[in-house]
Amino acid sequence: MSYKLRNATPGDMISVLDLIHELAEFENQPNAVEITVNDLIKDGYEEGTSFRVIVAEKNNDLVGMALFYPRYSTWKGRSLHLEDLIVKKEFRGKGIGNALYTSVLKYADQNGYKRVAWEVLDWNKVAIDFYISTGARVFDDWRVAHIDEKAIKNYLKKTNS
Amino acid sequence: MSYKLRNATPGDMISVLDLIHELAEFENQPNAVEITVNDLIKDGYEEGTSFRVIVAEKNNDLVGMALFYPRYSTWKGRSLHLEDLIVKKEFRGKGIGNALYTSVLKYADQNGYKRVAWEVLDWNKVAIDFYISTGARVFDDWRVAHIDEKAIKNYLKKTNS
Repeated sequence: MSYKLRNATPGDMISVLDLIHELAEFENQPNAVEITVNDLIKDGYEEGTSFRVIVAEKNNDLVGMALFYPRYSTWKGRSLHLEDLIVKKEFRGKGIGNALYTSVLKYADQNGYKRVAWEVLDWNKVAIDFYISTGARVFDDWRVAHIDEKAIKNYLKKTNS
Repeated sequence: MSYKLRNATPGDMISVLDLIHELAEFENQPNAVEITVNDLIKDGYEEGTSFRVIVAEKNNDLVGMALFYPRYSTWKGRSLHLEDLIVKKEFRGKGIGNALYTSVLKYADQNGYKRVAWEVLDWNKVAIDFYISTGARVFDDWRVAHIDEKAIKNYLKKTNS
């Protein structure tokens, strides 16, 4: 199957948001997506670069994407975080996800990043097995924690901070 | 107990690295720390800002710190990651960790970040209970994955990428 990988442009953000919605549904969180196309354009292209996106294109349609940005490991130094790796359902199993993943690792290698990190759902065994086969480690003993905007405001108010 | 919180300066990075080492020992990974004081100064202050550090100071000694940086949530938008929250062993239980955590939440609130995220070890029940009491969510079904520099190079070589 012929497809090409390239860096996303602002004009791709409509399709990128569609892919983000598709992933949220796959992760059983269809209503979790609050960002808009305008947010993606502003945050990715207009007010400094919060993230980079590599897209997979086939017949002028976007069929997949990888979105990533820098992080900082206090053990290893400058690192990357792969926030989303998404391939449209009907195009899975054709090597596109693998190619996107590899392109992020190449970007990390070429730009001197010491590590790439991401998160994966524990029931997504196919993904976990793939990642381990590439040399990644998947940790059982770490838990991800979040506090969102509303809870932050509540906490600061409650504690008079 | 009197202590003060302030933004770290390059001159604090020796003490900050000591705290990073102390956390690595607490997490049973005493040999995992590869970065140096020079890396911290370069990455935090000289080549753009990869991270921010708030330190807790008592009698001119640093007794704790919070290190954090921007991330990007494709669900919520601009967010922060709290990479390390560390208080020296002999100063724990005195509210310093709580004050550092609160200062990061205040920074997020004042700067329009939609979420603060971090990772916590599943056996660290005291920390997990504290985070939940503040309104944070700790997720059981996500796993953290890493691929480090050496494994990236191996993978790219093996796959001729």
